[in-house]
Amino acid sequence: MSRIRDLERTRARILKAALAEFAANGLAGARCDAIARSARVNKRMLFYCFGSKENLYREILRRKFSARAAFFEPAPDNLADAIVHWYEAFSSDAEWVRLLEWEALGNRDRQLVGEEERRNYLKRTLGLLGRAQANGLVPNEVDLIQLQISIIALTAFPLAFPQMTRLASGLAPTDPRFRRKRLQFLRWLGERLSATQLPAAGKNGTVHRKTSHDNAAVARTPHPRGRSNQLVDQR
Amino acid sequence: MSRIRDLERTRARILKAALAEFAANGLAGARCDAIARSARVNKRMLFYCFGSKENLYREILRRKFSARAAFFEPAPDNLADAIVHWYEAFSSDAEWVRLLEWEALGNRDRQLVGEEERRNYLKRTLGLLGRAQANGLVPNEVDLIQLQISIIALTAFPLAFPQMTRLASGLAPTDPRFRRKRLQFLRWLGERLSATQLPAAGKNGTVHRKTSHDNAAVARTPHPRGRSNQLVDQR
Repeated sequence: MSRIRDLERTRARILKAALAEFAANGLAGARCDAIARSARVNKRMLFYCFGSKENLYREILRRKFSARAAFFEPAPDNLADAIVHWYEAFSSDAEWVRLLEWEALGNRDRQLVGEEERRNYLKRTLGLLGRAQANGLVPNEVDLIQLQISIIALTAFPLAFPQMTRLASGLAPTDPRFRRKRLQFLRWLGERLSATQLPAAGKNGTVHRKTSHDNAAVARTPHPRGRSNQLVDQR
Repeated sequence: MSRIRDLERTRARILKAALAEFAANGLAGARCDAIARSARVNKRMLFYCFGSKENLYREILRRKFSARAAFFEPAPDNLADAIVHWYEAFSSDAEWVRLLEWEALGNRDRQLVGEEERRNYLKRTLGLLGRAQANGLVPNEVDLIQLQISIIALTAFPLAFPQMTRLASGLAPTDPRFRRKRLQFLRWLGERLSATQLPAAGKNGTVHRKTSHDNAAVARTPHPRGRSNQLVDQR
């Protein structure tokens, strides 16, 4: 028993060291010597546990997907909350963002590690957006695939391009001041995108909501330009 | 004269080959041998023209900034048009996106190439957003720096993470079908974010615009909840 436990501990140490090395240098640039040294094992042990550098990389990605899939299971169906949740997932995991970035630069139409699993995971989160749309929390005309790509873009970008974040804002993406501003902006954006009822942000950021009074008032004045007018159509 | 012209042509060939090599492999991974071979010059000529690999890289980035700054000079002040313009700038330049990505992965708080120039360029485009805000085309409560970062994120992401674009949409980011859908989505998003006057997107995506008639109509009905109501404030 104790030998199995020891081996498990060794594997965990190797995985931790490998994640850091792959995030720093990518699959191509990562060195098994460096991983073994950092995990305090010899290289023979590393190959005994994982077979090859590529297999070790696959195992890292596989574990990351599982962890992230679990993170999204109780996903909020309100769009603003979902974007904020997504930001928290990305902005706290620089290693994950860097792994994706190395993959983006290295992969040339080859099969991705865990491709099927990842496609299914994206389909599941797309399903959550679909449910939100069915519940009227996302406007009907929205292309959900584009929305999903956009949510990932908006939330992953600061860590993916820390130098541009710093150039534009003067702050590192991990700076609590940056994160606070980003969160506030993403919440505003999510509310803007999801509002199906006449949002009109005033100077102080409050939102004017449609009421039956407004409806009646607008209904009294036919739209002079003959445009499609939802309010009138709704009478 | 002709010798100077020859040298200029040689420099141009080297720059072109170097851009491709840096985009493919980053500054650290780029090889001068490969650049010289692809430009059909010997390495001595390459060093005669540019001094070092790092200088060559600086020159590439400097030229890219200038080209891009020029692209944004007649920037549209309407937010949706600006986002679309930005998307066209990013989605047609995979090499540029890859250079930024290599930089993101490689740079560890070191001074960036052309840092001052790039900061000024971002300030200038921020100024355009500020003008749009002053003209009522961007809501007053919006943090413009966050908006700027978001526009870059939304427009650069598909090319920066082509594998995720493909996983999510089934299409390559350069596929005309993807670009068409992306453009349509970004336009919708820009209109959603910039509307300061009661936008109500219907099922067909049309937007209800305020008119003087609507103004008068709404003004006749005081807002029953006592919320801040921009339309009434504007009388």
